[in-house]
Amino acid sequence: MSIQRFHVGKRLSEMVIHGDTIYLAGQVADDPKADAGSQVRQVLAQIDKLLAEAGSDKTKILSATIFLPSMADFPALNAAWEAWVPAGQCPARATVEAKLAAPDYKVEIQIIAAK
Amino acid sequence: MSIQRFHVGKRLSEMVIHGDTIYLAGQVADDPKADAGSQVRQVLAQIDKLLAEAGSDKTKILSATIFLPSMADFPALNAAWEAWVPAGQCPARATVEAKLAAPDYKVEIQIIAAK
Amino acid sequence: MSIQRFHVGKRLSEMVIHGDTIYLAGQVADDPKADAGSQVRQVLAQIDKLLAEAGSDKTKILSATIFLPSMADFPALNAAWEAWVPAGQCPARATVEAKLAAPDYKVEIQIIAAK
Repeated sequence: MSIQRFHVGKRLSEMVIHGDTIYLAGQVADDPKADAGSQVRQVLAQIDKLLAEAGSDKTKILSATIFLPSMADFPALNAAWEAWVPAGQCPARATVEAKLAAPDYKVEIQIIAAK
Repeated sequence: MSIQRFHVGKRLSEMVIHGDTIYLAGQVADDPKADAGSQVRQVLAQIDKLLAEAGSDKTKILSATIFLPSMADFPALNAAWEAWVPAGQCPARATVEAKLAAPDYKVEIQIIAAK
Repeated sequence: MSIQRFHVGKRLSEMVIHGDTIYLAGQVADDPKADAGSQVRQVLAQIDKLLAEAGSDKTKILSATIFLPSMADFPALNAAWEAWVPAGQCPARATVEAKLAAPDYKVEIQIIAAK
């Protein structure tokens, strides 16, 4: 099965496609000074953009693992998430508390999707 | 490849099947007031039930990611896990410490399995 | 699709292959008294060894989830990782802070790879 990599850096690729399965790197906000809800929306927009490059979209997300440095942001996460996720086609999801690579980041989302 | 979703809510699906691969949402106990061992057993019973709906079972689990809010519950996790996991057919597994969505939850388990 | 398990213990298998996809257990250092950089190098060597048993190698890693008990070790992780990961073929990656099963462990890496 073929492997395709997108936005390949020295440390990670933002997206790797293996056959019919798409793996995204953990996505964080471009503007880490924004509040939690805004960071979630930024991350979800990045996911949309990456999946579009693969010819996929958010209706084909299989699994999402969400890391929040503070579970106090769980309501803000869910508000932005529920406004974004397509009715009837939401993925399996797990959300846990974990600090991230830089202290300003308020959310990181790791996605597995179908092509 | 087909995508099938089970127990679809507004935020997540409890199970998503993509071709031959099954992704479960992070499973937590129905009774979060129970002790750690009991919560692990509840979670494992939910995994059994979900996999059965997919026509699969615990002998086909590929990978398990386990989140414990307190690593002091690692022995209780392992006792319940080892009593449940089929000899010779246990999955790849990673266990890390992470707080969960509600403070009473003592374990969350995320599963990838084969159909 | 076939399932093959390698290094099967009572609790986990170190590697499970499902069709063309390889799932590794979370890898930790053999010598948990070593410093962070050394533990990362030990873990990466174990990943090389496991993938070789599957007839795969580090150019075929799809996704890496990295858990660090202290994000202060992020620079040491990245130095060892960037020296190891093949140019142009690095995986999707997420790195979060999480305590591990034993207090001396300074890194755990969970890998999904292609056969």
